[in-house]
Amino acid sequence: MSGDKANILLVGSGGVGTIASVGLEMSGKASVTSVLRSDYDRVKERGFEIQSIDYGNFESWRPTHVEKSVQEAMDKHGPFDYILVATKVLPEIQPTEKLIQPAVTPRKSVIVLIQNGIGIEEPVANAFPENIILSGVSMVSAHNYGGKVVEHEPDELIIGYFDSPGFEKDQLLQTAREFVALYSAAGADCVLTEELNFTRWRKLVYNSTINTTCALTRVDAGRSFHSGMEQQLVVPAMREIIAIAKSEGITIPESAITDMVESDDGVYATPSMQVDVEKGNPMELEVILGNPLRTARKNGVPTPILSVVYELLKAVQFSLMERRGHIKLPKNGPTRSAGDVPYYKQ
Amino acid sequence: MSGDKANILLVGSGGVGTIASVGLEMSGKASVTSVLRSDYDRVKERGFEIQSIDYGNFESWRPTHVEKSVQEAMDKHGPFDYILVATKVLPEIQPTEKLIQPAVTPRKSVIVLIQNGIGIEEPVANAFPENIILSGVSMVSAHNYGGKVVEHEPDELIIGYFDSPGFEKDQLLQTAREFVALYSAAGADCVLTEELNFTRWRKLVYNSTINTTCALTRVDAGRSFHSGMEQQLVVPAMREIIAIAKSEGITIPESAITDMVESDDGVYATPSMQVDVEKGNPMELEVILGNPLRTARKNGVPTPILSVVYELLKAVQFSLMERRGHIKLPKNGPTRSAGDVPYYKQ
Repeated sequence: MSGDKANILLVGSGGVGTIASVGLEMSGKASVTSVLRSDYDRVKERGFEIQSIDYGNFESWRPTHVEKSVQEAMDKHGPFDYILVATKVLPEIQPTEKLIQPAVTPRKSVIVLIQNGIGIEEPVANAFPENIILSGVSMVSAHNYGGKVVEHEPDELIIGYFDSPGFEKDQLLQTAREFVALYSAAGADCVLTEELNFTRWRKLVYNSTINTTCALTRVDAGRSFHSGMEQQLVVPAMREIIAIAKSEGITIPESAITDMVESDDGVYATPSMQVDVEKGNPMELEVILGNPLRTARKNGVPTPILSVVYELLKAVQFSLMERRGHIKLPKNGPTRSAGDVPYYKQ
Repeated sequence: MSGDKANILLVGSGGVGTIASVGLEMSGKASVTSVLRSDYDRVKERGFEIQSIDYGNFESWRPTHVEKSVQEAMDKHGPFDYILVATKVLPEIQPTEKLIQPAVTPRKSVIVLIQNGIGIEEPVANAFPENIILSGVSMVSAHNYGGKVVEHEPDELIIGYFDSPGFEKDQLLQTAREFVALYSAAGADCVLTEELNFTRWRKLVYNSTINTTCALTRVDAGRSFHSGMEQQLVVPAMREIIAIAKSEGITIPESAITDMVESDDGVYATPSMQVDVEKGNPMELEVILGNPLRTARKNGVPTPILSVVYELLKAVQFSLMERRGHIKLPKNGPTRSAGDVPYYKQ
């Protein structure tokens, strides 16, 4: 702690991360350093405009510090008690463990991953075996529209701990409790669970199926229903996710299917991966679909629908990465007859 | 025949149809009436601009007649010896048999379908049991860029006859020979085959797989290769098509797979269905993928990849049809919890 306050580094200032930083600062118990890239100049100059149903509205709000990189944040304001990671998970482009590496103080920094998907903790735990990893599923609906952050649905956060081999369960639990108390102090609905995997897999019932098929077809969830895709493809795909979860000892009730499809009732909802594709941004494909399918293969669970959806989305992801400059292709098309091998194998 | 010339109605003046009409007119043995919709005023006024590697270049070329509708064409210039249909096949929007119905003279008009896919002849033969149906697969590469028609690859047409129950085989064969002679007269490479189904199924090895997956992902064939999709998904899907063909007694050699993928060597090719999706136009989904899959189901052939691709593309097609005004959705999203049923079931 620096003074009485927890010293927090926030990496990832989209809607979820920014609303978290507002709540943490308002508690009076934390001081937040945000790492900003594209938003840096604007926020330094004018702050964020905030419309929060939990914390109120602000014309110009700033966390205690903003910095341009994790390294600068560490140099000027470290060491940190907590490193809160609220970025999209894009292991192909920016693995979390590399992103936060400069700021991780062994035996001190608690790393809190508030991110989508499954299998996100292992690479971070492997890179930092002396640090406690907390893992959170956020239910908030909040978006950062170019510096204006709007919170549409209340800030609910479910926190669990990752079972790192170097730590006693009591210590992990105590650390998770402390973070939950801190996060709740300004009024957010933050709860501790010892069944975070259940929460993550249950969320995948939506994200691995509705989110992926909408991204691929660029057809929103309401039109997925009307066209018949929801019934013909999405619901059977949800059963594949439930079967994979079961093979890991996690029982998702069948009612989750109804809950998920009805969560879009009354609107033509565009899920996050579809938003990404339409904006030309890489999707969180590996943690939302790739990792569940690797679990399925490991456990011998058949996934006839999702495996095809995944292969198709990998091509889309490839193309999105190319468009963002992460992949550079030769000028002329491939010459299979001359023995070219696919790019991804090189 | 009207005078010495065959009286031909052309329905569908994209690249394939227009180049066919140029060749037929240049033979001196045919007089063509073209039905034009969006191009009518421009062609009436200025003609087509033609760049043809078979027939030469023309700044302003017109068929003998142009009319705005099939009915007007029939009223002014019918009856027709041949009705040449070179439209996209979109049974959901415009079934061929309804489109040409006003111009079909029983026992006289020979209907020539120069179109993609399989299963295109049956609905036409059922609607016009007294007319001979010829069926053609065009290998030409020609495009109509808003009145400027460019032929990139030579005009090759493979013609067969549909085995209509009301006709003797000799009569069908003789009719096909006459059309081939007419079409070849100006120099096009038009050949008769008694194995048109082989040609159609072989072409599906490309169209049902490369064309469909590129359309779905909006990733071109070169990038499909580089991303790994070609190897992981497209080639196995080609084996599904070959298996369906086999269940119909048609043996496509395994070498067709190599031929098809190598046909895009050296370029980043954008197949026709991908062009359609990117332009917001409905795709020839049912004759390119729906009909082969119905054959697979009838014959008990498993199609794990293509069935998923089809369900996804049906949602895309739904959305394209909505965008073109063929489907009107309610303003608010569907309410599954209130017992809404998918649109396609209504």
